[in-house]
Amino acid sequence: MKDQSHSVEEILKKRVSMRQYAERDLSEEDIEWIIEGARRAPTAGGMMLYSIIAVKDPAKKLILSETCDHQPFIAKAPLVMIFVADYQRWFDYFQLSGVEEYCQKTGRKFKEPSEGDLFLACSDALIAAQNSVIAAEARGIASCYIGDIMENYEKHRELLNLPPWAFPIAMLCFGYYPETKRPDPRSRFDPKYFVYNEAYQRLSPDELREMFQEEENSFPKNNPFKAENAAQWIYARKAGSDFAAEMTRSIREALKSWQEKNNYKSE
Amino acid sequence: MKDQSHSVEEILKKRVSMRQYAERDLSEEDIEWIIEGARRAPTAGGMMLYSIIAVKDPAKKLILSETCDHQPFIAKAPLVMIFVADYQRWFDYFQLSGVEEYCQKTGRKFKEPSEGDLFLACSDALIAAQNSVIAAEARGIASCYIGDIMENYEKHRELLNLPPWAFPIAMLCFGYYPETKRPDPRSRFDPKYFVYNEAYQRLSPDELREMFQEEENSFPKNNPFKAENAAQWIYARKAGSDFAAEMTRSIREALKSWQEKNNYKSE
Repeated sequence: MKDQSHSVEEILKKRVSMRQYAERDLSEEDIEWIIEGARRAPTAGGMMLYSIIAVKDPAKKLILSETCDHQPFIAKAPLVMIFVADYQRWFDYFQLSGVEEYCQKTGRKFKEPSEGDLFLACSDALIAAQNSVIAAEARGIASCYIGDIMENYEKHRELLNLPPWAFPIAMLCFGYYPETKRPDPRSRFDPKYFVYNEAYQRLSPDELREMFQEEENSFPKNNPFKAENAAQWIYARKAGSDFAAEMTRSIREALKSWQEKNNYKSE
Repeated sequence: MKDQSHSVEEILKKRVSMRQYAERDLSEEDIEWIIEGARRAPTAGGMMLYSIIAVKDPAKKLILSETCDHQPFIAKAPLVMIFVADYQRWFDYFQLSGVEEYCQKTGRKFKEPSEGDLFLACSDALIAAQNSVIAAEARGIASCYIGDIMENYEKHRELLNLPPWAFPIAMLCFGYYPETKRPDPRSRFDPKYFVYNEAYQRLSPDELREMFQEEENSFPKNNPFKAENAAQWIYARKAGSDFAAEMTRSIREALKSWQEKNNYKSE
């Protein structure tokens, strides 16, 4: 077991999302440690409503680098892990164990996994993912989240062999930090803009202007989107982008499994 | 700044979800550190698509202890933090900055936050929440997730003054570890049952039986649910419970903001 050379404080303060890694594979011991990080995470009712798909196959990483909003660096990451919100395993166990008959006998409703189960499973998966990020950092392993794994649901379902109640909520690229100097952590908004006491407080126009002042000062005035302020620039690149529209389309498709009734009977 | 006495390894291995805390308030310095933990978490596109509502008011904690599946310990937690998936702030900023007019001028569609934005915001919020848990552990602060904050959406919306595009995805109770001996970490499934190489692998009946053997051995044979095996017992208490049904109902209600079009115009 390697010595932990970094304190939690250091890790939290210095971590940056890295899209470049040292060109060597992760050791098996380190991969097991990343998984152990996930495994020790808090989980709703101890149910561990998630699965991890570890991808090293170059061909598969290449496909993911395309389906996840065309980000070539994904193909170069030594390890890619997909965190899947997973109620399939439990539902299979329920079916195997006569839960349907039990429900009939005791006047209960036998329910397929539904939206509540999905959100709880997504929570489990993301909490585990972040625990694995922290575990990785402690061993000098950098990471980067790819939310775009939520896009192209049909393609990812086929590529990853996902059953109906398994939704890929997050992807993480892992690799050792490169020898080059680690970039400085990116800036964050001041807590006064996102931490509220006792109740949500909608920001006033003045507060919003103040909050986004840095963005307004630094966005590229000459940009291909013809955006005239930072909000327009960010809208064009993020909220209003093709990938955001695809994410919503894809999630609507994925949600169907969790909304329709009795589709398990036709499997 | 206090010295970090625990390594990451120790923290990940020894952390347990605690429902009992030392009977003293958290210091302001420690609360700021928990928030800093969240703030330094990875976030999609640097957008920080979440807010934190810090609740100390005893009356409000008492209400939450009822609305979150009747768990009295919540009222006794020195600090309760609600992690809100939040696109409202960005949407307000977009509206303030003429993004709608910009879209008309440049042939873009001006879109309200939708399902993709919700899932991305939930991811940001949960990743930040888990970072705050790790930050807390490093200072001897225990925590417990309450997924039940996803229930009773209408009540929580009113209690917490939530605007349409702010969904409470997770709640955390925080307090110093009590003087009593810390419980042992709870058991977890073996990685072979939830970590798959290259693609999802649905477990066979034999594998499922093996995976849940410990549950089958330890579930209370004499139980008020008349469950005859662990699957039936867990189904009755979790997946098939009243709180699970309420969670799905509540989420369906909350989802409406993210599905309907143009409701921002009527605000």
